[in-house]
Amino acid sequence: MCRELPTFKLTIAYDGSEYVGWQRQASGVSVQSVLENACAELAGGAVTVRGAGRTDAGVHARGQVASVTIDRAIECRTVVRALNWRLPLSIRVLEAVEVPGNFDPRFDARYKAYRYRIWNSPVLSPFERAYVWHVREPELDVDRMDDAARLIEGTHDFAAFQGTGAATLGTRRTVFSSRVGRDAGSQLILYDVSGDGFLRHMVRNVIGSLVEIGRGQHPPHWMLAVLGSGDRRQGGPTAPPHGLFLMEVGYEQPAAPDERR
Amino acid sequence: MCRELPTFKLTIAYDGSEYVGWQRQASGVSVQSVLENACAELAGGAVTVRGAGRTDAGVHARGQVASVTIDRAIECRTVVRALNWRLPLSIRVLEAVEVPGNFDPRFDARYKAYRYRIWNSPVLSPFERAYVWHVREPELDVDRMDDAARLIEGTHDFAAFQGTGAATLGTRRTVFSSRVGRDAGSQLILYDVSGDGFLRHMVRNVIGSLVEIGRGQHPPHWMLAVLGSGDRRQGGPTAPPHGLFLMEVGYEQPAAPDERR
Repeated sequence: MCRELPTFKLTIAYDGSEYVGWQRQASGVSVQSVLENACAELAGGAVTVRGAGRTDAGVHARGQVASVTIDRAIECRTVVRALNWRLPLSIRVLEAVEVPGNFDPRFDARYKAYRYRIWNSPVLSPFERAYVWHVREPELDVDRMDDAARLIEGTHDFAAFQGTGAATLGTRRTVFSSRVGRDAGSQLILYDVSGDGFLRHMVRNVIGSLVEIGRGQHPPHWMLAVLGSGDRRQGGPTAPPHGLFLMEVGYEQPAAPDERR
Repeated sequence: MCRELPTFKLTIAYDGSEYVGWQRQASGVSVQSVLENACAELAGGAVTVRGAGRTDAGVHARGQVASVTIDRAIECRTVVRALNWRLPLSIRVLEAVEVPGNFDPRFDARYKAYRYRIWNSPVLSPFERAYVWHVREPELDVDRMDDAARLIEGTHDFAAFQGTGAATLGTRRTVFSSRVGRDAGSQLILYDVSGDGFLRHMVRNVIGSLVEIGRGQHPPHWMLAVLGSGDRRQGGPTAPPHGLFLMEVGYEQPAAPDERR
């Protein structure tokens, strides 16, 4: 019996604190390389793990997607168990599903969703220190931030929010939903954004501008002026990586955005 | 003008992961010693910081209380800011209040409240790995655990739940509230307990027995048999420290327990 080698779509969560990011690097430990080592032990030979999104150093994931082909008859639940047994506790495989061999986690993705977390209070919780951007003061105006966030929904040229040093061709993207809200009963402000793709540092650059609006330095519609300028120097600074979470990578048409929380 | 030296009541949160516990030890770094060093810098000389509860190595706090006397005219808000500036991010002073010089954080306490967190699912979230006990399977019966937990409310001899090696005199304590519930929409099970005092390892030993009941190994009323035996060997194992949080130390009469969530 001749059968194609099984390819698995893995859904992965990781605490990015101790990694140089998703992608394999010349020096430092990447999430991809740790996963490849665990998969290689399982496969009994070198394998390549491909990811949907290249998260930067310090960025976390609750729903990264990756693919791997393993030269061995093996059940999905065994893949989950065997990989988690080999992986450090900072990386967990949440799910494995068998997919066609031509599945491409990056180019087949229809949308990605990110969350950015801000701790807006003078004293930072010790339990949040690796998972938020600490904006001590003043108390940010969340309604203004939300008004501004919504202005970037739709299809635009996002060159103004692209990290410097990145390639400048092809900077049009569609943002399906872009919303800011306060987490009930805590000092957390959450920014949730989904779109068909994101430029390098795009979410962190958007947040840098939203926080300036939340501080009262600019009105909400300033967001459109920054967007329209196409110039990275017009917006706020790049927010730190450790507040950012890749929440989900979707392979079907995205749902319509939720209404105001 | 002759004025008594100001004494401060500090409310403190800490991530216990990297400490040998609250109390100063011959070797290893304790929360108390780190606080004493920070206070000494502020006071310009050695000081003693006294705590309300001696949390074990790995145990966390969201509301530990400590007292310190500082030989310097200084405002409460300056104490908070100056200490947090000197402390590592794993320890935060949430509040400072000036109190009479004879304030004793341990013996003046009327109640303490602890929370124990259990992650009850095959795959552990990477973001919870230092803050829960991971009970993979089976799915615990939370209603049975709650029924059992309530049976220890009231005044009892808790010798059966005292860690071995501790002094055995004076093991009567009053538990004001003892409840188990599921955190809505997550894989977390929370145990909340408050009482006028706790024996060494008492909360972790109670949880060890409640989990055996949740697994179906014993009926809820087995809790009373263990309690009545006065024998540590009758109950379940001691749960690990990193699921435990000291939530609050109260200096007024405690509130009546909440009804079922």
